[in-house]
Amino acid sequence: MTINEMKGKLEEVLSSKRFKHSLGVMDTAASLAERHGEDREKAAIAGLLHDCAREIKGQAVFDLCEKYHINVDYITLAQPELLHGPIGAVVAARDYGVEDKDILSAIECHTTGRENMTLLDKIIFIADYIEPGRKFPGVDEVRELAYRDLDRSILVSLDNTIRYVMDKGVFIHPDTIFARNFIIKENMR
Amino acid sequence: MTINEMKGKLEEVLSSKRFKHSLGVMDTAASLAERHGEDREKAAIAGLLHDCAREIKGQAVFDLCEKYHINVDYITLAQPELLHGPIGAVVAARDYGVEDKDILSAIECHTTGRENMTLLDKIIFIADYIEPGRKFPGVDEVRELAYRDLDRSILVSLDNTIRYVMDKGVFIHPDTIFARNFIIKENMR
Repeated sequence: MTINEMKGKLEEVLSSKRFKHSLGVMDTAASLAERHGEDREKAAIAGLLHDCAREIKGQAVFDLCEKYHINVDYITLAQPELLHGPIGAVVAARDYGVEDKDILSAIECHTTGRENMTLLDKIIFIADYIEPGRKFPGVDEVRELAYRDLDRSILVSLDNTIRYVMDKGVFIHPDTIFARNFIIKENMR
Repeated sequence: MTINEMKGKLEEVLSSKRFKHSLGVMDTAASLAERHGEDREKAAIAGLLHDCAREIKGQAVFDLCEKYHINVDYITLAQPELLHGPIGAVVAARDYGVEDKDILSAIECHTTGRENMTLLDKIIFIADYIEPGRKFPGVDEVRELAYRDLDRSILVSLDNTIRYVMDKGVFIHPDTIFARNFIIKENMR
């Protein structure tokens, strides 16, 4: 499937707002890939498709998890939106013909992060956070940081996510902590 | 060993400041035990001894971990002070004659917390945070909360700890997250 065919198919399943967000993540990811020496087309595809399962709701989420052996625990049972990454990787392969393991990995972990993220994982994670449609205090600083110091920008976004989740009083996904600890460890060397 | 003999021995290995802190945790833990229906003497002993290994430093920390099969990972290697709970449980048994598994468990997890803490674990954890020597903004509210709603008070202290650790830019121990998630889960029922 060409990237234009992917766009056409994606536009059918996403709200216009989320489709626009996906195009923003695609462009930002491609640009970050160029800056950090990652494959530009892989980054564009992963960015475009990262939310391809975001609007699957209700029981269909759990049916897909069962069918594709995606682990559901008490955290994702209470916050099923956290499953759209793992389900998105399955849907990208099944419905968009993506076979590249790096692209599928980046889609899979884009919401929570995880330990030992690849360069492409990191690019998609931060592109989702800073694409042009995102507006929050400090976003311009994180945008600039993502080009200058990718790990540092991810650390900022993880910390902001953890603070946000704590303020809401809901679960903190352990993979977010593993992602954060690993980045700190790697940068202590 | 009587509790008075324990006090005498503990005073020899701790600074006067930390010994005073230990007496504060002992009294607070005993009082919380009475309020929440836990054994008062067990709480007093666990509170008294919780920091019995806190002033073991340097290579001795890792030698004890090796001798007593305490797991050291990249987090505790970088922040060995996190090991004084597990080492404290070993020292309480070896040097203070404590055989009670509940007391040893409460000493073991008092720094990081852990998933599915017992009532005594929770009492020692929060007593360490609110004993009379602790001064920080909001401490009086947490003190009051610990008597009224133990889980809620622990959630506040875990959130404060996570914020503090994030501000310092150091690792967040996964057990702190597991403790927090579990308490939220238990209180969602």
